[in-house]
Amino acid sequence: MKTDSKVIQTNPPPRFSDRAQALVGQEMFSVLERAQAIAAQGHDVYHLELGNPRLTPPPSVVKRLCEEIAKENFGYTQSAGHPELRQSVALRYSQKTNLRLTEKHVVISPANLIISQFLDLACNHADRVVFFGPAFPSYWAAAAHIGLEVANIQLRSEDGYQLTEGHVLRAISLSPRAIIINSGNNPTGAVYDRRVLDLLVDLCALHGIWLLSDETYAEVDFTGNYYSLANRLESHVVVLGSFSKVFSVPGFRSGYLLADPEVAEKFALSNSTLFSCLPIFTQLACASGLEVVDEYALDVRTRFLTATKLCTDMINGSGLLTCVPPQSGFYVFVNISGTGVDDRTFCSRLLNYHHTAVTPGRSFGEGYSGFIRIAACGDLPYLRTGMERVIACARELAESKELGQVRK
Amino acid sequence: MKTDSKVIQTNPPPRFSDRAQALVGQEMFSVLERAQAIAAQGHDVYHLELGNPRLTPPPSVVKRLCEEIAKENFGYTQSAGHPELRQSVALRYSQKTNLRLTEKHVVISPANLIISQFLDLACNHADRVVFFGPAFPSYWAAAAHIGLEVANIQLRSEDGYQLTEGHVLRAISLSPRAIIINSGNNPTGAVYDRRVLDLLVDLCALHGIWLLSDETYAEVDFTGNYYSLANRLESHVVVLGSFSKVFSVPGFRSGYLLADPEVAEKFALSNSTLFSCLPIFTQLACASGLEVVDEYALDVRTRFLTATKLCTDMINGSGLLTCVPPQSGFYVFVNISGTGVDDRTFCSRLLNYHHTAVTPGRSFGEGYSGFIRIAACGDLPYLRTGMERVIACARELAESKELGQVRK
Repeated sequence: MKTDSKVIQTNPPPRFSDRAQALVGQEMFSVLERAQAIAAQGHDVYHLELGNPRLTPPPSVVKRLCEEIAKENFGYTQSAGHPELRQSVALRYSQKTNLRLTEKHVVISPANLIISQFLDLACNHADRVVFFGPAFPSYWAAAAHIGLEVANIQLRSEDGYQLTEGHVLRAISLSPRAIIINSGNNPTGAVYDRRVLDLLVDLCALHGIWLLSDETYAEVDFTGNYYSLANRLESHVVVLGSFSKVFSVPGFRSGYLLADPEVAEKFALSNSTLFSCLPIFTQLACASGLEVVDEYALDVRTRFLTATKLCTDMINGSGLLTCVPPQSGFYVFVNISGTGVDDRTFCSRLLNYHHTAVTPGRSFGEGYSGFIRIAACGDLPYLRTGMERVIACARELAESKELGQVRK
Repeated sequence: MKTDSKVIQTNPPPRFSDRAQALVGQEMFSVLERAQAIAAQGHDVYHLELGNPRLTPPPSVVKRLCEEIAKENFGYTQSAGHPELRQSVALRYSQKTNLRLTEKHVVISPANLIISQFLDLACNHADRVVFFGPAFPSYWAAAAHIGLEVANIQLRSEDGYQLTEGHVLRAISLSPRAIIINSGNNPTGAVYDRRVLDLLVDLCALHGIWLLSDETYAEVDFTGNYYSLANRLESHVVVLGSFSKVFSVPGFRSGYLLADPEVAEKFALSNSTLFSCLPIFTQLACASGLEVVDEYALDVRTRFLTATKLCTDMINGSGLLTCVPPQSGFYVFVNISGTGVDDRTFCSRLLNYHHTAVTPGRSFGEGYSGFIRIAACGDLPYLRTGMERVIACARELAESKELGQVRK
């Protein structure tokens, strides 16, 4: 840096828009940054905050990625996504659902962005949207950004966070413009019942309500009874899928949606307006991954069933923390109320003193400040150590509570 | 496909939002799709529609890309972008500007998305924004999507599409919330005068107007006098940069912005809300590219000066089409009014009969239906053939005009 370099003037910027003022982002990424700052001080930080499976991706994914890079395939592609990948997704879902799906039903976009795109295409400012809590932070962030009124229907831990007919009827009675559901739930792992989901699709059709089915964790279902709303791909239904979790490539930022062609076309126009298109090489790598997805997902499911069982057993065996065993995915949503502190206090103490990062429960909606989300990612020894730190932190807090003093 | 598979019911979808109805996307991507459809029929299509430099990227970019992929560096990174890349960008601009810039001034995001993000952070629905026409299609698409009122101040071809003091005063007098300028212009290639740009920054500061300086083509400046508004990085100024053009990697979808840290933080929150983060490997590849950017850009500039000169000479030598020689970049904005047809007719005839894709002028704003944009990308023999096709098409149309008949 030159010694005569100037400091920039620091007048306040002009007023931000209402949407800018409503931006909250995803708290997991703030946690990641704090965790990286602590790691930079030389601490051995355990990362249980973000859902990064950290498995070895299928070799066919990496092979194709390298092949396309070797061809210097660095140009633009269609805004709706590369035709090869769209056709592969359509073929896979045609086989799964017995519907005649084509590439016109498929758009490639980052899975997280599809949430914002869906709400943007479905809702005007101040429209009402229904979530079933606890609900993924990006739903909240997207709804806040767009200025929507969120009706949060809380699911009950006593029912294993299941969606019931009663919840569906309550949601419809609120006359929302849109509903988001997330079977293979983040953070609870709940997998919803087919009859309840069919009822939801039918009632949304009847009342002209948009429905986003976030199926990011569909391939990591432990029940064997996963019901995809791709089976009910009517014009009001959008199904969101992701390659990040099943192929362990969250950094590709490649997801997809299935929708009626007229709706899919709007998403493609949204892509064209926002980011033009995605990289070709990551898209084609995912297309090659789809050739082996069933075999590979079997292994992924086995690993995460073991990993989440380890966490669940340690939590429920702690005599202090509790959780519902997940039916899918790799998250465990943990009740920490026995510690006497809220989620933020718990998380900052866990990170600062035990160098372990988890996500505060309130990121998943109001009413969850007595919870944290643990991402059971990493190998079993890593997870065991991370969980020991979580439980040690909880014990210290519980003891401090008895002594009437808590250090943050 | 199974023979008993079902056709999906085709009820119309629920009403789309106002924003969905206002989506127009970027016409170049529709042209690309039509061109690919014609190529799929077996025709040898010449692509002069999209700004894909199609040069070999710097070896250090591809090397680093492959190294990070070999490490399976497929996880998440910070929403604001990878620190190594942000630091590299900050260092480069600190050296260029003599300002003390740090990674806090830099956010990594797809360059095209930064346009939408800027307008979203600066403007509320129905706010006024000023463009100087002809202006890049994404500005129009983003403004339409957000529901902004656009005031388009047309620059004059007689002045080489230069931005003048008069244009600046006129823009300020319209009391907009935001102004977008694009020196190293797409589509005209004009490079703006430092004094006029300084006046614009000063007046925007005085009136609390947000200013986006789109500097995507800064590294492809032929004048040697390029003035970046990174030199004037005050709190109302956002500078947009891209790696796509200089490294010939548009498919990476990696751009960046420079802004006051408070403003940069809003962009990072926008990233976190919309798409979480970008791939690590493409970001680190760009960071390695920055080590050789000056040397590499010299070669890129030389090539595109030659390429645009070839096009310009052929156009102005045709006796029928005219253009202003660009001062930067690789586009040529061509007046086709001598052919007697409008841009859409010209483009569809050129694609259908001469298998050559270019972009209609009206994509760049109202008042340009007598123009087309040619992207002078590809090697010289390729370009020469493409240009011969453009001129042959123009000749046919001019002859048909004399005969009083035009086939589309």
